[in-house]
Amino acid sequence: MSATTFMAREIAEIPAAAEAVLTAGEAARIGAALSARTFPFVVVCGRGSSGHAGVHLRYLIETRLALPVSAAAPSVVTGYARPPQVAGALFIVVSQSGRSPDLVAATEAARAGGALTLALVNDPDSPAARASDLVLPILAGPERAVAATKTVTNSAIAGAALVAAWAGDRALDQGLAALPERLNRARALDWSAWSADLAGAPAAFVTGRGHGLGPLREIALKLAETLRLPALGYSAAELRHGPRASVSAATPVLALRQADPLAEGVDDLVRDLTGDGLRVHACGGPLGTLPWLGDGHPACDPVAMLVPAYRAIEAEARRRGLDPDKPVGLTKVTETL
Amino acid sequence: MSATTFMAREIAEIPAAAEAVLTAGEAARIGAALSARTFPFVVVCGRGSSGHAGVHLRYLIETRLALPVSAAAPSVVTGYARPPQVAGALFIVVSQSGRSPDLVAATEAARAGGALTLALVNDPDSPAARASDLVLPILAGPERAVAATKTVTNSAIAGAALVAAWAGDRALDQGLAALPERLNRARALDWSAWSADLAGAPAAFVTGRGHGLGPLREIALKLAETLRLPALGYSAAELRHGPRASVSAATPVLALRQADPLAEGVDDLVRDLTGDGLRVHACGGPLGTLPWLGDGHPACDPVAMLVPAYRAIEAEARRRGLDPDKPVGLTKVTETL
Repeated sequence: MSATTFMAREIAEIPAAAEAVLTAGEAARIGAALSARTFPFVVVCGRGSSGHAGVHLRYLIETRLALPVSAAAPSVVTGYARPPQVAGALFIVVSQSGRSPDLVAATEAARAGGALTLALVNDPDSPAARASDLVLPILAGPERAVAATKTVTNSAIAGAALVAAWAGDRALDQGLAALPERLNRARALDWSAWSADLAGAPAAFVTGRGHGLGPLREIALKLAETLRLPALGYSAAELRHGPRASVSAATPVLALRQADPLAEGVDDLVRDLTGDGLRVHACGGPLGTLPWLGDGHPACDPVAMLVPAYRAIEAEARRRGLDPDKPVGLTKVTETL
Repeated sequence: MSATTFMAREIAEIPAAAEAVLTAGEAARIGAALSARTFPFVVVCGRGSSGHAGVHLRYLIETRLALPVSAAAPSVVTGYARPPQVAGALFIVVSQSGRSPDLVAATEAARAGGALTLALVNDPDSPAARASDLVLPILAGPERAVAATKTVTNSAIAGAALVAAWAGDRALDQGLAALPERLNRARALDWSAWSADLAGAPAAFVTGRGHGLGPLREIALKLAETLRLPALGYSAAELRHGPRASVSAATPVLALRQADPLAEGVDDLVRDLTGDGLRVHACGGPLGTLPWLGDGHPACDPVAMLVPAYRAIEAEARRRGLDPDKPVGLTKVTETL
């Protein structure tokens, strides 16, 4: 393991990668083309980190375009051999490599079934891209760490730019325009108060709501794969019920809070957990304990919060002698059938 | 806490409750009525345990009717105030109490938006039922333990009976007809080899695929709320990638395996985890370590596997001096807005 890991370098490249995908304008062009059509619903298909970018996209499509979104279960196609009827729908596959066989099969089935297929991929020459009518390259550049970082933020940003053009949402456009500079400043935020608290913890929780749901699940996955820590990502609405009983003084909770109508629910949960003597690290809002930039666009802020979280996780991994570039048992291409 | 808990008594009532909902025939009648109509897609709405019954329903609808299913995010309606366009769709709300304000609001919005709304509820006089065009009472009887058990199995069974009639799936009908007797025999299965292994574990994993996904997430939630154990429910396809790195010799894995085309993937994962010296408890198939009935219908078996899991969790809770009827911080009606 070198002093500088691929993961650290790739996190540092996040602002430039964001700038690249936003200035290329392909998301805006495809989004504008989509706005000339109508769809009964949208299917989003992705696994792992790309699945989290898909959750982020889902909230944007539902709130900006009022289209219902189904998160595809690829096993319905590949295992049970019953592709859902998607004629006339928009099918979006999100995949960094574009090579996972089950995602390629689900995309081919959707296209054969009459959906318009769109690939959000880092490799525009991949099988998933070739199986798609439209390709939106996320332009994150080569990613060598097994732990995906800049491809995750760029997938989310490309998806948000697509929706901004598709829905004609100028506020979202402006939020995205401000994002590279905010991502750059986010690199200086020190979340070691949180990551240091993870040392010795048997498990950890990450929470938030709405536009924060994809990013919070992504942080939980990075804790699992990079720090080998069982990490649970829950919406604040879910966490305050059943799972709450499993939060103890030993298990730190990270709460992401963007300034939107769901913020109050996150604040309430943070207040309750803190009042019960639990270890809560909050980003955003009046109850924030972690360094933050102040409120920006509520659909962009949770993506920017990934940057200090990634940095803290990478540093904590090195501190523990774990190689963040080579998590145990993982490969770069997700092979599932 | 009495020697016999409400939770134990209600688990014991599962076979009779299943018999009641199947013989009432209301699921079959509503399913037959649905088969006379067409829908572009289905939205399923539920939280917590009812959400897990909704996941089970989702796989049945997708594989039997080839209709795409969207799992509703109620916050899109209640927080962001943008109800998705659902004209002509079928909207199914799953709720034990039928009183969660956000689910009622999402149901009202779906009905106002032109969806056919159907409530799978234990209380047919509840607000969610009154907001629905069709009501399918799950007939589980009064449930007094905070930890839902027989309402969960009956929600899943009512949903399966609905799909069997809707799709004209006679094999599923036969599987359901055999289920009360199998549930009864499942009460005698002793899974204490698994639950004893949870003592001292800092976290636990539950895995499976397809028809097992809803039940495995339900078991994870019960571990969290009843044993206060951080518990992660992952599909075998997801677990074998990122989250795998967080599975250690200290964290037992429970694997549910039904006899269907996805079984091989579960077997592969069980073999890999066992080969790595991890603690795996498997139900079903040639690698099974836990007592099981033998293969029945693949969409029914994971529901039946809930019975020995619930029993083991309830017994382990009592052994630790925890009251399974009163999990910390929980109430019977989920109040989220």
